[in-house]
Amino acid sequence: MPDRTLRVAMVGRGFMGAAHSQGWRTAPRFFDLPAHVEMAVVVGRDEAGTAAAADKYGWQEASTDWRATIARDDIDIVDVCVPGDLHSEVSIAALQAGKHVLCEKPLANTVAEAEAMVAAADAAAAHGVKAMVGFTYRRVPAVQLARQLVAAGDLGEIREARAVYLQDWLSDPEAPMTWRLDKSAAGSGALGDLGAHIVDMVQFLTGELVSRVAGTVRTFTTERPLLTSNVGLSGTASTTERGQVTVDDAALFLAELGGGGVATFEATRVAPGRKNGLKVELNGTKGSLVFDLEDLNVLSYYDASDGAEAGFRRILVTEPTHPYVGAWWPPGHMLGYEHGFSHQVVDLVTAICKDEQPTPTFADGLSVQRVLDAVERSSADGARWTDVGSA
Amino acid sequence: MPDRTLRVAMVGRGFMGAAHSQGWRTAPRFFDLPAHVEMAVVVGRDEAGTAAAADKYGWQEASTDWRATIARDDIDIVDVCVPGDLHSEVSIAALQAGKHVLCEKPLANTVAEAEAMVAAADAAAAHGVKAMVGFTYRRVPAVQLARQLVAAGDLGEIREARAVYLQDWLSDPEAPMTWRLDKSAAGSGALGDLGAHIVDMVQFLTGELVSRVAGTVRTFTTERPLLTSNVGLSGTASTTERGQVTVDDAALFLAELGGGGVATFEATRVAPGRKNGLKVELNGTKGSLVFDLEDLNVLSYYDASDGAEAGFRRILVTEPTHPYVGAWWPPGHMLGYEHGFSHQVVDLVTAICKDEQPTPTFADGLSVQRVLDAVERSSADGARWTDVGSA
Amino acid sequence: MPDRTLRVAMVGRGFMGAAHSQGWRTAPRFFDLPAHVEMAVVVGRDEAGTAAAADKYGWQEASTDWRATIARDDIDIVDVCVPGDLHSEVSIAALQAGKHVLCEKPLANTVAEAEAMVAAADAAAAHGVKAMVGFTYRRVPAVQLARQLVAAGDLGEIREARAVYLQDWLSDPEAPMTWRLDKSAAGSGALGDLGAHIVDMVQFLTGELVSRVAGTVRTFTTERPLLTSNVGLSGTASTTERGQVTVDDAALFLAELGGGGVATFEATRVAPGRKNGLKVELNGTKGSLVFDLEDLNVLSYYDASDGAEAGFRRILVTEPTHPYVGAWWPPGHMLGYEHGFSHQVVDLVTAICKDEQPTPTFADGLSVQRVLDAVERSSADGARWTDVGSA
Amino acid sequence: MPDRTLRVAMVGRGFMGAAHSQGWRTAPRFFDLPAHVEMAVVVGRDEAGTAAAADKYGWQEASTDWRATIARDDIDIVDVCVPGDLHSEVSIAALQAGKHVLCEKPLANTVAEAEAMVAAADAAAAHGVKAMVGFTYRRVPAVQLARQLVAAGDLGEIREARAVYLQDWLSDPEAPMTWRLDKSAAGSGALGDLGAHIVDMVQFLTGELVSRVAGTVRTFTTERPLLTSNVGLSGTASTTERGQVTVDDAALFLAELGGGGVATFEATRVAPGRKNGLKVELNGTKGSLVFDLEDLNVLSYYDASDGAEAGFRRILVTEPTHPYVGAWWPPGHMLGYEHGFSHQVVDLVTAICKDEQPTPTFADGLSVQRVLDAVERSSADGARWTDVGSA
Repeated sequence: MPDRTLRVAMVGRGFMGAAHSQGWRTAPRFFDLPAHVEMAVVVGRDEAGTAAAADKYGWQEASTDWRATIARDDIDIVDVCVPGDLHSEVSIAALQAGKHVLCEKPLANTVAEAEAMVAAADAAAAHGVKAMVGFTYRRVPAVQLARQLVAAGDLGEIREARAVYLQDWLSDPEAPMTWRLDKSAAGSGALGDLGAHIVDMVQFLTGELVSRVAGTVRTFTTERPLLTSNVGLSGTASTTERGQVTVDDAALFLAELGGGGVATFEATRVAPGRKNGLKVELNGTKGSLVFDLEDLNVLSYYDASDGAEAGFRRILVTEPTHPYVGAWWPPGHMLGYEHGFSHQVVDLVTAICKDEQPTPTFADGLSVQRVLDAVERSSADGARWTDVGSA
Repeated sequence: MPDRTLRVAMVGRGFMGAAHSQGWRTAPRFFDLPAHVEMAVVVGRDEAGTAAAADKYGWQEASTDWRATIARDDIDIVDVCVPGDLHSEVSIAALQAGKHVLCEKPLANTVAEAEAMVAAADAAAAHGVKAMVGFTYRRVPAVQLARQLVAAGDLGEIREARAVYLQDWLSDPEAPMTWRLDKSAAGSGALGDLGAHIVDMVQFLTGELVSRVAGTVRTFTTERPLLTSNVGLSGTASTTERGQVTVDDAALFLAELGGGGVATFEATRVAPGRKNGLKVELNGTKGSLVFDLEDLNVLSYYDASDGAEAGFRRILVTEPTHPYVGAWWPPGHMLGYEHGFSHQVVDLVTAICKDEQPTPTFADGLSVQRVLDAVERSSADGARWTDVGSA
Repeated sequence: MPDRTLRVAMVGRGFMGAAHSQGWRTAPRFFDLPAHVEMAVVVGRDEAGTAAAADKYGWQEASTDWRATIARDDIDIVDVCVPGDLHSEVSIAALQAGKHVLCEKPLANTVAEAEAMVAAADAAAAHGVKAMVGFTYRRVPAVQLARQLVAAGDLGEIREARAVYLQDWLSDPEAPMTWRLDKSAAGSGALGDLGAHIVDMVQFLTGELVSRVAGTVRTFTTERPLLTSNVGLSGTASTTERGQVTVDDAALFLAELGGGGVATFEATRVAPGRKNGLKVELNGTKGSLVFDLEDLNVLSYYDASDGAEAGFRRILVTEPTHPYVGAWWPPGHMLGYEHGFSHQVVDLVTAICKDEQPTPTFADGLSVQRVLDAVERSSADGARWTDVGSA
Repeated sequence: MPDRTLRVAMVGRGFMGAAHSQGWRTAPRFFDLPAHVEMAVVVGRDEAGTAAAADKYGWQEASTDWRATIARDDIDIVDVCVPGDLHSEVSIAALQAGKHVLCEKPLANTVAEAEAMVAAADAAAAHGVKAMVGFTYRRVPAVQLARQLVAAGDLGEIREARAVYLQDWLSDPEAPMTWRLDKSAAGSGALGDLGAHIVDMVQFLTGELVSRVAGTVRTFTTERPLLTSNVGLSGTASTTERGQVTVDDAALFLAELGGGGVATFEATRVAPGRKNGLKVELNGTKGSLVFDLEDLNVLSYYDASDGAEAGFRRILVTEPTHPYVGAWWPPGHMLGYEHGFSHQVVDLVTAICKDEQPTPTFADGLSVQRVLDAVERSSADGARWTDVGSA
């Protein structure tokens, strides 16, 4: 058993709170962590709901005061799972209080907020305090294997990438209005929610940054029935009242990569039959890779040097030699969506204990935010090439 | 919060112990169980290892005495995860002690043991004590949906089934000897380990029993290098000493189903590239179904009534309306191998609290055992049709 | 242009006549044949229909007298496309008349007929006359590539094969009676029609013969409405009269291969959604292969030596370096069902001109017939292992 | 037998000449055409090569003078298979000579040429003379079925389309220079060659025109070794001399459709493993469709109204009820690349005999050309939205 103990406070208790809780709860059961992890406090807005969440998800205490929680001496890590408009405030406060921070993606709703967060992370880093942003899809074993192949040069130079993230829950024009369709609450629509994932994925896999974009955002259905009751992500529609949709249904953009390659990106919520369809393909001078989140235990790899017997290899990334897999089950025993949250815990706790910088960094999160911002600027400027820019 | 508390003792702490622990630990975090579940005691052979397992997997206590544990008044459920040759002894003792029993598959290594277990379960049932066997693949949502379609008559009469369970860890003739290749320890090879799953799957999906079989079992590699150290399911081979393989590498059999249909079954450990390749197809008079464990969130369904637009539908079984799914993640967020163990906990605890018979029953497990036994008898009798028989 | 001319007479003008005509007509347009081929005579039963067929398919003359046609001095090759019960009579007569013979599969309806044909072929061979049986699926480029990989030892020793040929046109119990369901006309049902293909495929790919079988044949629907008019392979059903089905709907059997491996075979016409579903998988000690006729430009190949990046390679067998492909289109331009008939012409004409034995030989066809016969014997004998036997 | 005879002259004898010849030769063998078709004259540059082509492909005569051939009274149809820079001259001359014209895609190398061709087609139409452009992928049965579903409203309003055409023969930077990489000969690179196909495909399937585009074209390898000898589409590279590549390797663009939807397009020759990877997906308000040319007998269709059993249906478009299929083989017997050329002959000859306008028209071809032109203009203008424009 490790000597060190790290006590965690999680702020937020929605869908992401459930997923993060599963990560904190499960990681120590399968991996040998360098520290003992304690699920100390969950923080929410209302007292009863937060108490219930603490009980349900397995946190020792519930609180409705995130500032007081952050100030506690017995808290080492703050896990930020609140909506995006609160990411910067909570994260910066936590870093300033000397707590390690894990912040859900996207890093922030605006570039300015993200920049402030990076500044706070840099300042905190000088004192050994770590900050990390939660792009958990990086931690799918197949994605890690893909990155290893690219980093080893097995694909040669990257010429093209095509990345889509397709969902369908808004394809019906009568699907009801929710807070996710209100810009003041959600920041943006498919662009920020789904686009952030595929931008990070391409930047991570290629090891290159997007340098400029040309794109457009669209809202196909501008008015929707108001919600009368919540059911899952959606709910029951009102038959009489309608609300104004103020975010995008879809975002499409072209991009240039730092290494000279080009890419297409598409994020949408109106593609019937596509439930969580994040799919990325990379084409290099020596080979290609395909990853599909709806088939997440598989990596498809084309090695041009295979000659007359070349073909996309359907690699089942479930061998003990594959990243993260050895801690779980035997070959062919599938992992699911939530396993990335355990891997995130492993990597964060390891980095803290080794006093190393965990990735993705806040700077990585900022770079994604800048791309999304450039897409909106390009869309407003006739789809013209728009520089992503940097600090 | 439920009033009732059920305290569990798990006997065994290997691969299945890890999987069952994950089920006990996770189910209450996602489902609203009718009872509070406590992971009370884990039982193993050696003191240090069992203590470590208790800590790792989250059990309150460790014990090396399963009889004493079973005798405790504060234990309600005994979860039997020991090797097959101990299933009957532990299960029967637990049932006689008035404990509800969950026994891992296969129910037993012999028909006689399985019959004794069914008798014990029947006797216990008279006192409200429940017994269930752990064919967890039944609890994959896609499998449940398949069963619903068959039960609703959407496939019509079942004419044919073909079921394979393919693995590859013994395809290399120099893969080392392990206890799994020793009949005295393992009972049988691919037949009992993998064949049991596909027999149960076909019987469950069709709602019909296998009535007779014609089959053969094979051992391709009869001598293998002895193991010098354990690594995962396999290990490091000795260069000098070799041991005798006394179980089958593969089992192939034809079968008749109670409803008049026929089936082919194949279980093997020597199919390169097939890692956990359980695949079942059913053909009825009105449609077909395909399930593949290596793509477990999907059910393929052909509805002949779709006419000119008929085609196998690749149903992503991740909608809130699908069995078990509503408790987990939004559509398209994949479940993995281990989720079946949580579903098993849900169903067992629910049945106990409702005083209903959980399924699969010990009788279901016995029916599988009888099929496997008939395959071995048929194999020894020139592959002749051999009745499965019944009590 | 080649000096030599080979003039062909085709006996039969049904589905196979159309397919063979397409082969004779097309092969010289893409391949450089060593002889000029002339489509001289088509022979059918009725005068008008045969004249129309000659015109439609591009034969110079029509005849209703196959004996007279075979006797003509200006005919070099006789292409036998009549129903199976006439194969032996026409083929033997043609061989005795000194004509090269291409006979459609299956070689004959009985082993005795097939043996007589082999004897005739042997006698003719002494005079340089060639005989070949038309298992055209051997000539799909992906199948040839598969054979090359096996022959080169890339799969190691073959341990298991599983082969199915699934169709669905009889899955509806009210699908009408046709001559194909009458044993006196058709010989057998799925066994001879579909089973012959998969037996030949496994024997060809492995280079091994089936040595014994254990199997069963089934007829699920024993009475069907009589046909009132012909439409395609099926027709319009009568509402009042019903006929007796005297052939099998499905045949399932286990097999042993000459090299020590085992196999499962299944041929059926009652699998909804499976249209022409011939699928074969081979598992060797070093790798695996999968071929699927419904995706016929693809070969899936698992090379265990690919290590951590191993996965089934989806090889698109459309490169100029692949068998037969160089004569057709650029990479990725798909070939279809009928191309095998052109390849068959190429191989037969080449063998004749080089005075070499074309394959598959009549002996190959006989070996398939013996397997089918053994399956029927085993089925009648309680599925017992039944030797295939040899001359 | 039809009374009418249509005599065809084909100008050009390369890859497309071979494909068109196969269409003219084969269509009458499977379809009942309303006219007898004669393959009268093939026209090429050099006498010997053209004579050989006539013999090989089955044309009655060879000529090196296209003007003289067009002037012949006994020619009814001129089939234009020359390189794109000659399309307008030959087509216009043929139309003015009163011949029906089938012109290979793309219609022309420039918008101006295409406009002149449309004017000539319009003038000729007044005299009953037909003009048609050869986008044969429209005539794949699965594509026709897709169009039928969209036209019937089964997809609802089209919201998004994504279309790629991926090849890999230039992914190796040392692949040699050919005339296809020289702008003066080829007009453009991937954009015109591959992009034309996907633009036509999306416009055909949706029944909508692209109204504006925002795009970019790229050349990754600007110098390549000179070709020393021709081998297939490529050849042997020189080790010393290098030539300048003056066309694009890849073109990527966003588009708006006439009905309010948006689309992404990508055409590239540098995607390893993608051989002829034309893939199109349409998302409507009620469903989605996917077509993949590397699996061309299949249409994937998602019908949102299938409810809990909804999933992409893998429709094997090989039923007699499917477009064109009834003339060929039984269900599940695959068609290939070249069958579209027979279907094209059927549709052209039928339209001529019925005195109807065949499609795609020259105006359809012009609309594609305008899109490609707009992409080049957008690329030169910072990827800005650029109107496609119309006459």
